[in-house]
Amino acid sequence: MTSSIDFKPYYAVIFTSIMKNHDDEYGQMAIQMTQLAKTQPGYLGFETARNEIGISISYWETMDAIHNWKQHATHLLAQQLGQEKWYQYYKVRICKVEREYEFG
Amino acid sequence: MTSSIDFKPYYAVIFTSIMKNHDDEYGQMAIQMTQLAKTQPGYLGFETARNEIGISISYWETMDAIHNWKQHATHLLAQQLGQEKWYQYYKVRICKVEREYEFG
Repeated sequence: MTSSIDFKPYYAVIFTSIMKNHDDEYGQMAIQMTQLAKTQPGYLGFETARNEIGISISYWETMDAIHNWKQHATHLLAQQLGQEKWYQYYKVRICKVEREYEFG
Repeated sequence: MTSSIDFKPYYAVIFTSIMKNHDDEYGQMAIQMTQLAKTQPGYLGFETARNEIGISISYWETMDAIHNWKQHATHLLAQQLGQEKWYQYYKVRICKVEREYEFG
């Protein structure tokens, strides 16, 4: 079990979703958005898993970085398509990571 | 798309894990812990999904509620068994949810 003493807070965007339609176009868009996010200033990482619900979390250095990524033109288009075609429901939570520890 | 003006911050515990062993005992323990968490003061909700990695997020009213749950005797035993038997790796992030919105 490790824990950092000089921990610097960062930010997480928790995206929880229920899909109504999971087609090839969605899969391609998801890959494209994951790749594009990695190139954005302040990007720190990404984790995703899906069973009945999907949980995707992106990590960012600052709130500004999150805001800029949300407003990115290509990402805006993906968000629009997501609402029209793929998602029955989603919830976005913007969080400040205040503490962390890990095992293994 | 809805967004609450009088939003009250709350807390999220993001538990990201890679398993080394997924047996029946793990499944029973996971159900037991999910049920027990629901009865704890300050508990707000729980979401989980797993593919290559597992992401489980519990939501809490306060940091104290998170601390109390972490120290709950039955939960401490589950954490110990998790390290010994089931998890190859995990990371825990304690977060303050500062903003949220949803669709659908």
